[in-house]
Amino acid sequence: MINGERRIERPLRWAMVGGGRTSQVGYKHRTGALRDNTAFQLVAGAFDMDFARGRDFGVNIGVAAERCYPDYKSLFAEEAKRPDGVEAVTIATPNGTHYEITKAALNAGLHVICEKPLFFKVEEAEEIKALAEEKGRILGVTYGFSGQSMLLQMRAMVAAGAIGDVTIVNLQYTHGYGCDPTGDKTNESQKWRVDPAVAGPSFVLGDLSTHTYYMSNLILPDMRIKELLCDRQSFVGTRAPLEDNAHVMMHYENGAVGTMWVSAVNAGCMTGQRIRIVGTKASLEWWDAYPTELRHEVQGQPGQILYRGTDYLDGIAKDDERLGALHVEGLSESWANIYLKFAIAMDAKNRGDEELLKDLVYPSIDGGLEGVRWIANCVKSAEQGSVWVKYE
Amino acid sequence: MINGERRIERPLRWAMVGGGRTSQVGYKHRTGALRDNTAFQLVAGAFDMDFARGRDFGVNIGVAAERCYPDYKSLFAEEAKRPDGVEAVTIATPNGTHYEITKAALNAGLHVICEKPLFFKVEEAEEIKALAEEKGRILGVTYGFSGQSMLLQMRAMVAAGAIGDVTIVNLQYTHGYGCDPTGDKTNESQKWRVDPAVAGPSFVLGDLSTHTYYMSNLILPDMRIKELLCDRQSFVGTRAPLEDNAHVMMHYENGAVGTMWVSAVNAGCMTGQRIRIVGTKASLEWWDAYPTELRHEVQGQPGQILYRGTDYLDGIAKDDERLGALHVEGLSESWANIYLKFAIAMDAKNRGDEELLKDLVYPSIDGGLEGVRWIANCVKSAEQGSVWVKYE
Amino acid sequence: MINGERRIERPLRWAMVGGGRTSQVGYKHRTGALRDNTAFQLVAGAFDMDFARGRDFGVNIGVAAERCYPDYKSLFAEEAKRPDGVEAVTIATPNGTHYEITKAALNAGLHVICEKPLFFKVEEAEEIKALAEEKGRILGVTYGFSGQSMLLQMRAMVAAGAIGDVTIVNLQYTHGYGCDPTGDKTNESQKWRVDPAVAGPSFVLGDLSTHTYYMSNLILPDMRIKELLCDRQSFVGTRAPLEDNAHVMMHYENGAVGTMWVSAVNAGCMTGQRIRIVGTKASLEWWDAYPTELRHEVQGQPGQILYRGTDYLDGIAKDDERLGALHVEGLSESWANIYLKFAIAMDAKNRGDEELLKDLVYPSIDGGLEGVRWIANCVKSAEQGSVWVKYE
Amino acid sequence: MINGERRIERPLRWAMVGGGRTSQVGYKHRTGALRDNTAFQLVAGAFDMDFARGRDFGVNIGVAAERCYPDYKSLFAEEAKRPDGVEAVTIATPNGTHYEITKAALNAGLHVICEKPLFFKVEEAEEIKALAEEKGRILGVTYGFSGQSMLLQMRAMVAAGAIGDVTIVNLQYTHGYGCDPTGDKTNESQKWRVDPAVAGPSFVLGDLSTHTYYMSNLILPDMRIKELLCDRQSFVGTRAPLEDNAHVMMHYENGAVGTMWVSAVNAGCMTGQRIRIVGTKASLEWWDAYPTELRHEVQGQPGQILYRGTDYLDGIAKDDERLGALHVEGLSESWANIYLKFAIAMDAKNRGDEELLKDLVYPSIDGGLEGVRWIANCVKSAEQGSVWVKYE
Repeated sequence: MINGERRIERPLRWAMVGGGRTSQVGYKHRTGALRDNTAFQLVAGAFDMDFARGRDFGVNIGVAAERCYPDYKSLFAEEAKRPDGVEAVTIATPNGTHYEITKAALNAGLHVICEKPLFFKVEEAEEIKALAEEKGRILGVTYGFSGQSMLLQMRAMVAAGAIGDVTIVNLQYTHGYGCDPTGDKTNESQKWRVDPAVAGPSFVLGDLSTHTYYMSNLILPDMRIKELLCDRQSFVGTRAPLEDNAHVMMHYENGAVGTMWVSAVNAGCMTGQRIRIVGTKASLEWWDAYPTELRHEVQGQPGQILYRGTDYLDGIAKDDERLGALHVEGLSESWANIYLKFAIAMDAKNRGDEELLKDLVYPSIDGGLEGVRWIANCVKSAEQGSVWVKYE
Repeated sequence: MINGERRIERPLRWAMVGGGRTSQVGYKHRTGALRDNTAFQLVAGAFDMDFARGRDFGVNIGVAAERCYPDYKSLFAEEAKRPDGVEAVTIATPNGTHYEITKAALNAGLHVICEKPLFFKVEEAEEIKALAEEKGRILGVTYGFSGQSMLLQMRAMVAAGAIGDVTIVNLQYTHGYGCDPTGDKTNESQKWRVDPAVAGPSFVLGDLSTHTYYMSNLILPDMRIKELLCDRQSFVGTRAPLEDNAHVMMHYENGAVGTMWVSAVNAGCMTGQRIRIVGTKASLEWWDAYPTELRHEVQGQPGQILYRGTDYLDGIAKDDERLGALHVEGLSESWANIYLKFAIAMDAKNRGDEELLKDLVYPSIDGGLEGVRWIANCVKSAEQGSVWVKYE
Repeated sequence: MINGERRIERPLRWAMVGGGRTSQVGYKHRTGALRDNTAFQLVAGAFDMDFARGRDFGVNIGVAAERCYPDYKSLFAEEAKRPDGVEAVTIATPNGTHYEITKAALNAGLHVICEKPLFFKVEEAEEIKALAEEKGRILGVTYGFSGQSMLLQMRAMVAAGAIGDVTIVNLQYTHGYGCDPTGDKTNESQKWRVDPAVAGPSFVLGDLSTHTYYMSNLILPDMRIKELLCDRQSFVGTRAPLEDNAHVMMHYENGAVGTMWVSAVNAGCMTGQRIRIVGTKASLEWWDAYPTELRHEVQGQPGQILYRGTDYLDGIAKDDERLGALHVEGLSESWANIYLKFAIAMDAKNRGDEELLKDLVYPSIDGGLEGVRWIANCVKSAEQGSVWVKYE
Repeated sequence: MINGERRIERPLRWAMVGGGRTSQVGYKHRTGALRDNTAFQLVAGAFDMDFARGRDFGVNIGVAAERCYPDYKSLFAEEAKRPDGVEAVTIATPNGTHYEITKAALNAGLHVICEKPLFFKVEEAEEIKALAEEKGRILGVTYGFSGQSMLLQMRAMVAAGAIGDVTIVNLQYTHGYGCDPTGDKTNESQKWRVDPAVAGPSFVLGDLSTHTYYMSNLILPDMRIKELLCDRQSFVGTRAPLEDNAHVMMHYENGAVGTMWVSAVNAGCMTGQRIRIVGTKASLEWWDAYPTELRHEVQGQPGQILYRGTDYLDGIAKDDERLGALHVEGLSESWANIYLKFAIAMDAKNRGDEELLKDLVYPSIDGGLEGVRWIANCVKSAEQGSVWVKYE
C-alpha cells in the first residue's frame, strides 16, 4: 500500500522537455511524477517550442521563471552549472527528437524518462542503452498504462500457473478518434503524429500498440516472439505510408500464438485497450477502461472477477495499491506508480544498489528497446507485403 | 411480429435424418421447425444409427412407430410410396454424410434442410446447387444463429449508411470446451468432429466460423473477400491436422479488411461469438450471448444500445419479432425464424413464386456453398504455410 | 436436460380462453404449452371477444373451426359433450374475469392454468383453492418468468447455505412503457390494465410485482413476511387510484428485510427485473434480461458468474436445461418449463400420484394465492397512508 | 480542462489534523489537495494521536519536523505565531471531534475542510455555519466522490430538461465489508465508526449515505424532501444501536419520490454506489465504480452511454476534465477537483469576491449541514418505529 511516505531519501530534482500547455501528455507526466512530492520535485523545464508560452506555463505550475529555458540544450547547460541543478529529465516531445535529446541528457549526466515510442531504429535504442549503462544512468520509458496494479496481478497469476501454459495472446488497442482526419492538420498535439519525418516509421503501431505490447511482456516475461506478420492500412489516405489501422499475428517461441489489433479508426470505440491471455486451463482478461477488474475464467468453473484493492490479490499487486477497494484508481495512479519506480531506480543507481535494480519491475530502457524492435518488425512485415518475418 | 398464425396454406410434412437422443443439435431443429405447428409437422424420421433407440425416441416425440426408419434410404423409399409422405427432410448427421444424403433427398423430390458445414468440397456444393435447381427444390442450411432479428437490423442499418463505408470486419466465435480433450474420445456427439474422415478438412473453422462468416455476409451482402490468410493450430495435439484454433485475416474487394478468431480452446470463454462492423463514421457490435442488444457507436457521439422488440428498429427486424421488448429471445427464436423462412421458401417454390424467393433473406444453398468455400480457402492458406491466397 | 421426449403418457387436450390476435400474452402461452407437442395439444378455444376474429385466428393456428367458440361458457359446455373434449384450459383474459372463468372451468372438471394476478381478493383465491381440491384438479398460475432454470439454481444454493443466512431481499421489476399514457386509451391489450373495474385494486403491483414476488418465494421457500409498508404513486394522474409506481419495504419473520421497486414509469429502463438475495456471507443476483448468468458474490472473494447449461450447476437447474451452455435461453424456455410442469402435475393428479405433486416445484394455486395476498397487503398499507401493516 | 496551471495567485499554506499513517482517508485528502501544487502546500500537521508516529509520518511526507504537532490545539496556537503560518486546515479525525476542532480552527481564523458527516446535531452545524460567516472563512466538506465530472453533467442535463420532470430518485451506497465484524474491534481506522460516542447517532447512514445524498442534491439542486421514512437494522448485533443497513423512502415537495439503500452488509458487493434519476421522459444513471460512463435512457429510444472527456458534454463537466477521453479518471481526480474548488473558494473569500462564491458549485458548509439534517431525520424516523416524519 502506497500512502505517499517517502521511499527514497529525498525527492529528485526534475525537469521536463516538452509537455507544455498544448501537450496531451505533459499533465500525465506531472501528475505521475509529483503525486506525493516525495519522488520528484519539478524545478526546471523547456516546456514549449514557443519560449514565452513555455515560460508563462512553467511559472504557472510553480517553476521559477529563470529555470524555464528556451530549449533542452540551454536547460542541460545552465542546470549543470547550478549546485541544485536537475538530476532527472523527462522528454515529452515528438518522437523524432527523442534520440538526440536523450543522448544529450545522458551525456549531461542526467537520468532520463522518455516518451514512447522511444526511437525510430533498434540500433539507436541499443546505442542509447549502452550509453546509459556507461554513464550509470537510468532510462525509463513512459508506458503510462503499465503501472496499473492488476497487470502485476496477471503477471503473478501466470507465473503461479493459474491459467496453465499460455496458448493464445489476444491484444487490442483501438479507438476511433482518427476517423475524422481534421486533427491531422489542425491539432498541434496531433499533427506531427502522422508526419513520418517526426513520428517515425509508424503511426498507431508506435503510438498505441507499443503500450499494449509492453504490457503483454510485463505479464508474460518469459515469452518471446519467433515470427510475426503485420497487415497495415491507411484508411484515411492522406496518412499513407503511416497506418491508422493494423492487424498483427505472432508466433511465439513456445508454440503460443498471438494477435494485436491496433487502430485509430475503430469508430465509436471508447473502451478499446484489452488484453486476454489464454492458457490451457483458464484465461485472464483485462480492459484499461475498467482497470479495477480482472476476469479469471477457468474452463468448467464459474467465471471470476477479481477486484483491485482486495486482500486476495498477490503481494505484488497490493504493493502498488493507493486507494483501497471500492474506490476507482485511474490512469493517474498508473503514472504515479511508474514514476515512483523511476525514482526508486534512479536512487538505487545513484547508490549503486544493483541488487534492487535487478528485481524492480518497471518500464526501463529494455522495455523501450523492445517497443522499437516491435515496430521495426511490424513495419518490415507490412512493407514486404504483410508476410511472415523472423522476429529480430 | 410473429404470433404463430400460418404463413403458408398448411404445414409441410417433415422428417429428420439424425438428430436423435444423443444429438446436440436435433432438439434445436425440432424446436425451430415445430415452433407454431403452422410451418412443419414432424411425421417421419431416421433419427439414429441405432435403429431401436431411434424408433423409441421417435415414438417419444410423437412420430408413428411405423414411420421411424432404420436409415435415410428406407425413409426416402418408403415415404415416397405414401400419399401423405414427407415433403421436406432435415439432415442433422455428421458432416461426412451430408453430401450423399442431400443428393438422395433431392433425387427423391424432397426439399432439404442440412446442417453446416454443408459439404467438404466447393465442387460438391456447386453440383448440389445445380441439382436442387434442376429438381426445383429448396436447400436450406441451418446457420442456427442467423435468425436473430438484430442481425437483420444490422443489415438494414449498414444498407442505410448508418455507419458510413465499411472499413473493418471483426469476427469472433470462440469457446473453451475443447480445452479438455476427453470428449474427443468419449462424447458420441463430439468425437466425430475431430476425425477428418467424418468432419472434413477442418474442425473449428467448419464447426464454428461458418456460422459467423455467414452472419457477416447476411449483414454485409455486398462485400466480397479478395484474399485471405489463415493461421491454424491444434493446441490439443491429437487433433492434428484438424485445428482447434485459427486466426484469419481478410482483404475485401472494396478495400476493407477483416479478421476472424475461431477457437474451441479459448479457456473459460462463455460469451464468445461477436461481430463488430466498423465504418468510416460508426460501428455496430453484436454478441450472440446478449442477442437482445445491439451497440451502435457513432464516433463523437454517445454510444447507443438498441434493444430488440422496440419501435425504432427497422421493419425487417420487427417482422421477425416474437415476444416483444423487455422479454428475452433466445436461440429458439432464431431457429424458429429460419425454419419459418425455409417453409415459406418451400411453399413458394412449390407454387412457383420466384419473385418471393428472390427477396427472401434466409440461409439458402448459396450461404451453404459460401461456407464451404470459406473453409476451403482457409485450409488452403493454412496448408501453404499461413500465407495470403486469392479467394476463389 | 429436456429434449422434447414425452414425460407423460400422452399430451393433454388443451384450450384457451382469451389469448387471441390482439393479446400480448397469448403467444407466450402457446409457445410454452406446445413447445414439444408432448405436453399439450391445442384443440379448442374462445380466443377473442370478437367471435369472428377469434375463429379466424383459431383456424390460423390450427384449431378446427367448429371448436372455436364465442365465449368460455359455450366452450366448456360443448367440449364437455365430446369424447375427445378438452382436459385443460388456459385463462388469458383481463384480471376481472379470472375468478368466474376459473370457477366455471373447475366446475366443468377441467384443469386450469390462469394468468396472474389470479383474482382480486384473498377470499376468492381461498375459495377457488378449496374448489380445486374438491374437484381434484390442478390450478397453475403463469408466472411466466419463473421457469428460468437459474432461479432453481438460486433456490438450491440458498438451501445449501451458499450465502449464509438471508438478511436482505432486494427485488425490482420496472420498465418505462407507462411513461407515455397514450396506450392507456388506445391499446386494446393495455387499456384494461389501468381500469380498476377490470384490472382490480392495483396496476403495476399486480401486473409486474407479483412475478418477482413469486420468484422470491421460489428462491426462498422458507421465508415469510411479517409486516410490510407500501408507498404507491400514480405519476400519470389519470391512472389514479391505480399506481404506476410503488416502493415496498418488508420485514420477514426471520429478521431479514426486503424491498420491492415496481414501476411502469422508470423511463428508458429496458432491463428491469432484478433479484438480489443477500446473506451473511454472500449474495446472489439475477436479472431477467440476462437470464443465462447468475452472480454469486462471496464477501472477501472474487465475484463469480455462473452460466446456464454448465456442469457445475445443481441438478434441479440442469433438469430444466434445453439448449446447453453457450446458447441463450429466452422467455420461451421459461414458459415451456412451467407448462411442462403443469402437464406433469395434471397427469399426476389424474393418476392420483400425490407423492410426485408434493415435490414438484411449479407455480400452483398456492403461488397464485400468495400473489393475491401480496397485492392485498400492499394496497392496504398504501391506502392507510403508506404505513406498516401486519402481513396477513 | 484542468492541466495544473494555477487558478489562484499562490497556493495556500495548509495543515492536516488527523489523516496519519493508519488513516483510511488521509491519503485521499493529500492526493486531492496537493494534486498540482498550485492550490495547497502542506506545511504543518497534527497527524496522529500518537505524536511520535505522527511526526515521523509528517517528516516522511515532507513536513518540517518542527511543524508536526501533538494535537490540534498546539497546531493552531503555534502556527498562529508564524508569519508563514497555515491558512487552511483539514480535519480528518473521527466524527465526534469534528465540532470542537472546527470551532477552534474558525476561531483561529483558519479556513476549514472537514470530513463528513460534519457533526452530530443540526444545531451544531447551524452554529458553525454562523461562526464561519462571522469569521469570513470557508468551510468545505469532503464528500469525496462529489468531484466527479459526470455528476455535473447530470446536473446540467436535468437543468436543461433532458429527462423531463423528475419523478423518482433511486440512490444506493452499499458494500459488504461490514459482514465480517472482526474489524469493529481490531481495525484502528474502523472501530470508532461503530461506537456511538465517537461516530455519532449512525453508522452507515453517516459514513456512506451522506455522500450519495449530497450527490443527489448536487444533481437536483431544486428538490427538497418533504417527509421521509427510515428503516434501519444492525445485522451484526454488537453494532446496535448503530445500523449497518438501512432503507429510506423519501417524498419530495414536488411530488417526486425517492429511495436510499445504504449498507455495509451487502455481501460481496464491490460496485455499490449508484444514482438513478428518473424523469417523465428519460432517466440518468451513474455508478461510482464506472465513473467514466453515464447512462441516458430516453423512453422509446436507444439507450445512450455518455463518456467522460468527450466534446458533447456540457461545459460544466468539461471544465473539470483532467485526462481526456479514453483514459480513466478515478477517485483521485474527484478529490483534486473538490480541493481545487476549496482553494478557489478560500481565495475568493480572502479577496471578498462573493460573486464568484455565489456560483461556485462545491461541497460547502451548506452541503455539510444538509448531511447532518439527513442523518437526524433518518434516525428520528427509525427511532419512532420506521414511520414517516416531516423533514426538518
